[in-house]
Amino acid sequence: MAVKTDIEIARAARKQPIQEIGRMLGIPEAHLLPYGHDKAKVDQAFIASLGGRKRGKLILVTAINPTPAGEGKTTTTVGLGDGLNRIGKRAMICIREASLGPNFGMKGGAAGGGMAQVVPMEEMNLHFTGDFHAITSAHNLLSAMIDNHIYWGNELEIDERRIVWRRVMDMNDRALRDIVVGLGGVSNGFPRQTGFDITVASEVMAILCLANDLADLQRRLGDIVVAYRRDKTPIYCRDIKADGAMTVLLKDAMQPNLVQTLENNPAFVHGGPFANIAHGCNSVIATDTALRLTDYVVTEAGFGADLGAEKFFDIKCRKAGLKPDAAVIVATVRAMKMNGGVAKADLGAENVAAVRQGCPNLGRHIGNVQGFGVPVVVAINHFSGDTEAEIQAVKDYVADLGAEAILCKHWAEGSAGIVDLARKVAELADSGGADFAPLYPDEMGLFDKIEAVAKRIYHAEAVTADDAVREQLRVWEAAGYGHLPVCMAKTPYSFSADPTLRGAPTGHTVPVREVRLSAGAGFIVAICGAIMTMPGLPRHPAAEVIGLDDEGFVEGLF
Amino acid sequence: MAVKTDIEIARAARKQPIQEIGRMLGIPEAHLLPYGHDKAKVDQAFIASLGGRKRGKLILVTAINPTPAGEGKTTTTVGLGDGLNRIGKRAMICIREASLGPNFGMKGGAAGGGMAQVVPMEEMNLHFTGDFHAITSAHNLLSAMIDNHIYWGNELEIDERRIVWRRVMDMNDRALRDIVVGLGGVSNGFPRQTGFDITVASEVMAILCLANDLADLQRRLGDIVVAYRRDKTPIYCRDIKADGAMTVLLKDAMQPNLVQTLENNPAFVHGGPFANIAHGCNSVIATDTALRLTDYVVTEAGFGADLGAEKFFDIKCRKAGLKPDAAVIVATVRAMKMNGGVAKADLGAENVAAVRQGCPNLGRHIGNVQGFGVPVVVAINHFSGDTEAEIQAVKDYVADLGAEAILCKHWAEGSAGIVDLARKVAELADSGGADFAPLYPDEMGLFDKIEAVAKRIYHAEAVTADDAVREQLRVWEAAGYGHLPVCMAKTPYSFSADPTLRGAPTGHTVPVREVRLSAGAGFIVAICGAIMTMPGLPRHPAAEVIGLDDEGFVEGLF
Repeated sequence: MAVKTDIEIARAARKQPIQEIGRMLGIPEAHLLPYGHDKAKVDQAFIASLGGRKRGKLILVTAINPTPAGEGKTTTTVGLGDGLNRIGKRAMICIREASLGPNFGMKGGAAGGGMAQVVPMEEMNLHFTGDFHAITSAHNLLSAMIDNHIYWGNELEIDERRIVWRRVMDMNDRALRDIVVGLGGVSNGFPRQTGFDITVASEVMAILCLANDLADLQRRLGDIVVAYRRDKTPIYCRDIKADGAMTVLLKDAMQPNLVQTLENNPAFVHGGPFANIAHGCNSVIATDTALRLTDYVVTEAGFGADLGAEKFFDIKCRKAGLKPDAAVIVATVRAMKMNGGVAKADLGAENVAAVRQGCPNLGRHIGNVQGFGVPVVVAINHFSGDTEAEIQAVKDYVADLGAEAILCKHWAEGSAGIVDLARKVAELADSGGADFAPLYPDEMGLFDKIEAVAKRIYHAEAVTADDAVREQLRVWEAAGYGHLPVCMAKTPYSFSADPTLRGAPTGHTVPVREVRLSAGAGFIVAICGAIMTMPGLPRHPAAEVIGLDDEGFVEGLF
Repeated sequence: MAVKTDIEIARAARKQPIQEIGRMLGIPEAHLLPYGHDKAKVDQAFIASLGGRKRGKLILVTAINPTPAGEGKTTTTVGLGDGLNRIGKRAMICIREASLGPNFGMKGGAAGGGMAQVVPMEEMNLHFTGDFHAITSAHNLLSAMIDNHIYWGNELEIDERRIVWRRVMDMNDRALRDIVVGLGGVSNGFPRQTGFDITVASEVMAILCLANDLADLQRRLGDIVVAYRRDKTPIYCRDIKADGAMTVLLKDAMQPNLVQTLENNPAFVHGGPFANIAHGCNSVIATDTALRLTDYVVTEAGFGADLGAEKFFDIKCRKAGLKPDAAVIVATVRAMKMNGGVAKADLGAENVAAVRQGCPNLGRHIGNVQGFGVPVVVAINHFSGDTEAEIQAVKDYVADLGAEAILCKHWAEGSAGIVDLARKVAELADSGGADFAPLYPDEMGLFDKIEAVAKRIYHAEAVTADDAVREQLRVWEAAGYGHLPVCMAKTPYSFSADPTLRGAPTGHTVPVREVRLSAGAGFIVAICGAIMTMPGLPRHPAAEVIGLDDEGFVEGLF
């Protein structure tokens, strides 16, 4: 029997009308704004009505450092949600939306895989419910209003050389990274150098994902620092008077999107900030709403636990008052082997020694997450080539640390393949064993916060930074931004700043090359390496083969 | 009693669930893709199933040359649709979607006004069903793929100086009109000068509005000329291999959007190309679908009849095989006075002589439209300050031409105020008196086509053009584009190319400054004056006061 592709499985899904999925959650039809028959937004009035309800248990799915072997973090998130429902728990999942642009570069990202997927997959990889378009519009309205303000006399005395607010597009378009605008004479404004980022890198995206409601959204939008004067005093979005109109553009995008898994369990797919210059989690409003609608909410964070889980805990949970009850760290035998030094081409052969050698990467993530006061279980996402001995090696390693690793076959079997993990996660979450606390207190100095993450999470020896960087942090502290958490922009492929350094390196230094203020989102970004905020297309973009087939189905996107 | 604003009336509307509106048209729920509770797209399968049905009667609503006094063309279109339903006819309307960007500049445009509106008004002025965002994405994917092609070796030998495909954004952003992209070094590509237009000016918009179905859409997208080689041979979108992915991005945008009037009658609101460099009509697919679902379809065209009706007939009807059965020319007493030389400030005072003096503008439009073989009736859109004598002067003038002018009070009274016009329109349409033919045959030379429009519609003495323009037209004829119709880009405020020349001027010349090929849309654009394809924001953009009020309603947008 031929193995079905993800898209074939997704298309064969027996979807319930989205109103049925809403009914499972107790959402009346009038409060569900449908987008087609299989997607809907939950309206504001209904969400506001949930304020008094108790929150369910929050479960984070995170992972080891990503390798080219793949870990299946989203697949495990989806599988675990289905698994919890299978064992009789009321559960739902919360994951991020996909960015449109990159799908036309490399083969598009699905929402999970195999028998553990969220549907409708095609639409989630295309316009979905238009949230990212709304973010693009809101961001670029502010950009246009800044240049327009200067054009009409520049009453705010914006220094044209110090405009930090760029433009965005949800497209991989390297030609827009660095541009000069305002050419062509008097009627087109003042020429100046600027550029475009991809929409998911917009601070508006990070804000939307951290805001509690529309009032909080508008306040945060107003707080964005868009430029500076010659005397270096900041100019805010509020000064440009764009915050109200941006809120109007975002009012629907703020509402969580309800879809379903292949097994007809509910899922919120909402928001998708970058995981380097931003925090990489789905929206607070989706997670919080889910917690008030069900007993267990399974969510994920970007990249490995060193970046994703740390930001989930120190930024999202801190800001939203969320208290995670359990965490799942996803690992694969193949990824352990790669961490143990095996090349991708050689992953097919059994190599228990390499598995053992790679396990310290996993081990460090376990310790890190436990350090936040969150109980951990490891999910071994099964691949067909894994041998018994290799799987046992991972289990033994984890057991030696006093934790448990559970083999999961949700990719092949759906919820039936992940029942053991679901039982363990429910047990951990219900045990009351969690005692969550962020890594550092708000009052700690900004540079100390960076050091805390680098030393205690990355196990680095030291943090290096130019005087200019340290001085900038002091300026922000003096300006009242000292209480913000830090958002580390580091390679996801290693605990260190060197992407080739796998396993569990020690003795490394973390160089902070630049710091940026996201005053609306509410964090300071520490950039530790080259960060690309506008991708390019490959030599042969996927777009060249994307099209509609004779039956009107999308081909080439997956 | 205080007069209610358009938005107050719209918010008080008793909307039917969109499924009910679909049911009136015989569209099963499964074929109606809802966007919220009051908007829906009609799916492709259902539209394809209508192919064998007879088309209903097609009624065009057009107008005199626009003046600052306002004519109320959309209001009359909506009112007439409601009026036809009121007298027992099965009728629907087809109008254009609003562009997002300009709403943040000047006060936003509503869809009709008073008691003759389409709802939901707020959403139609914001993201609506995301069609324009899809067009933006499709357009910019092609742009990115062109620069990406050059980046990876330029196998097609694109001359970077001769790339005619720009980028688009649905925003008034003058700083993007003229830009240099690709700065910043090797990894960002080759610097070159280009710019952004507003999305409604995209050829993709014109294509979407002229395509019969998705296959036709993809063929037309493939036909777009994006650049030239050094030897001036054209490079097509198809050569860049973007046409398939663009079609995927546009597959939902191609489906007509169903909404309703205040009186719960069905309306398609779909597509919105510029009325200068493009043809300014809603989509062919919406009009054609409506014609197969009801007995009477009322639609409108951009600007006055010299531009809008001419393009509707010579481009849209010619290409789509549509045969209009009747036309309504909207006039107001106030606009007649302005055409007669009265300043806007003086419109309040009765001035029958000025009305009479302005009427020849109306008279020429009547003759022009009749010249296409389409029976005409004039709608006098009533304003409260109009006097009996002024109204009678218009009626008398029209009667002298052998036609009829009917006073309409739909703005104040809804369908009850437009019953007389509805009866007359139904009578004209049912009379079989129409014998539609476009102004010129396909075989006529391109310059001759321009002259035909200028002399027979604008009543110009001559057309002037540089040798370069004439030579370009010959080159296109030789390349096989000679059969295309011409799309005139001229000021809408006068029959001439001088916007200050009101009334019915004669003896003027029409200067063709530039010609452009829209090979995918299928027309040659003749530019007769300064045409702005990326608007700017005013000193105090509407965005400064747009926001959500305490109840979550949008304020400042209308």
